[in-house]
Amino acid sequence: MSDDKLVWNVQDSAEVYRSRVFRVLERRASSPRGNSKTFTVIEAPDWAIVVPVVNTPGGEHFVMVRQWRHGSRELSLEFPGGVFEPGEDSAVAAARELQEETAYAPGKIRALGKMSPNPAIMGNHVHFFLAEDLRHTGNQDLDDDEFVAVELIPVETVLRNMGKPPYVHALMASALALYLQERS
Amino acid sequence: MSDDKLVWNVQDSAEVYRSRVFRVLERRASSPRGNSKTFTVIEAPDWAIVVPVVNTPGGEHFVMVRQWRHGSRELSLEFPGGVFEPGEDSAVAAARELQEETAYAPGKIRALGKMSPNPAIMGNHVHFFLAEDLRHTGNQDLDDDEFVAVELIPVETVLRNMGKPPYVHALMASALALYLQERS
Repeated sequence: MSDDKLVWNVQDSAEVYRSRVFRVLERRASSPRGNSKTFTVIEAPDWAIVVPVVNTPGGEHFVMVRQWRHGSRELSLEFPGGVFEPGEDSAVAAARELQEETAYAPGKIRALGKMSPNPAIMGNHVHFFLAEDLRHTGNQDLDDDEFVAVELIPVETVLRNMGKPPYVHALMASALALYLQERS
Repeated sequence: MSDDKLVWNVQDSAEVYRSRVFRVLERRASSPRGNSKTFTVIEAPDWAIVVPVVNTPGGEHFVMVRQWRHGSRELSLEFPGGVFEPGEDSAVAAARELQEETAYAPGKIRALGKMSPNPAIMGNHVHFFLAEDLRHTGNQDLDDDEFVAVELIPVETVLRNMGKPPYVHALMASALALYLQERS
């Protein structure tokens, strides 16, 4: 099927709600058959998810963070990451978030891919990175409303348990898929 | 670190916006140190993503769908899936969405995991399934505003290209990670 049978023509949009972290827009678009319809979409800043790998005497481990998530109202064990500052380079943002949340600074940081976290309703992107040659720098640098426990988890444990609690954040499984693709 | 140093105490919430597909709530919660703060979260129905595998003379293929995404405003090549009907069993919903979007009915359908698509801001879950023994049933059964092209893609092509256009939907990489976990 040719793309012009699939592509919608985006028309105007209007902001209907704004919070600290995202905006909600109603966006009108015209279908491939020419019918107009309104869709509600969310605009938010891009953010990074970093897969940090350390070699220990016990084998290869991921540096992960355990934290409360306000959408799901539960604890989740995740790769570190966070939202870009305005104008910030994606690799710089990834390294900064890694260091703030875990106190590990990367010697090497490499892009694994850039994807849409939920393109049906969200306009932003999540940027995945692999961080290596980690150096422990001392203390976390957390915001007042961040409570983050740092844990080193064997890579094989994460591969085996992704998708089961506490590995419940689907975008961490995305990061794992890109890590496996890079390693293969 | 003990969990009580990480867990927030959820207080009241108020709906601030509602669309056809999601609601936006402002939810107050009290931090592990006892400070109260308001977070904006999105409540939406659960949905399924189905990884449909077919064996062809050319090897193992995924049945995928190419469609326009209104959040990212681009075409995306994805595993089929969709939102549950109220009260619908998750495997029934997955098989129904597969058949509606692709005209393939599964002989076998098996849960791969249930995750939070974005637990920082979303309260719902995405349920991943593996569909096998597919039987082509004739025609798609699409809504008026659905324009979906069905494509059979070799498994190895998807493994190699996930994360690059048109494989840009991050939750499809999550599905791939759970597929690889199941296969390993």
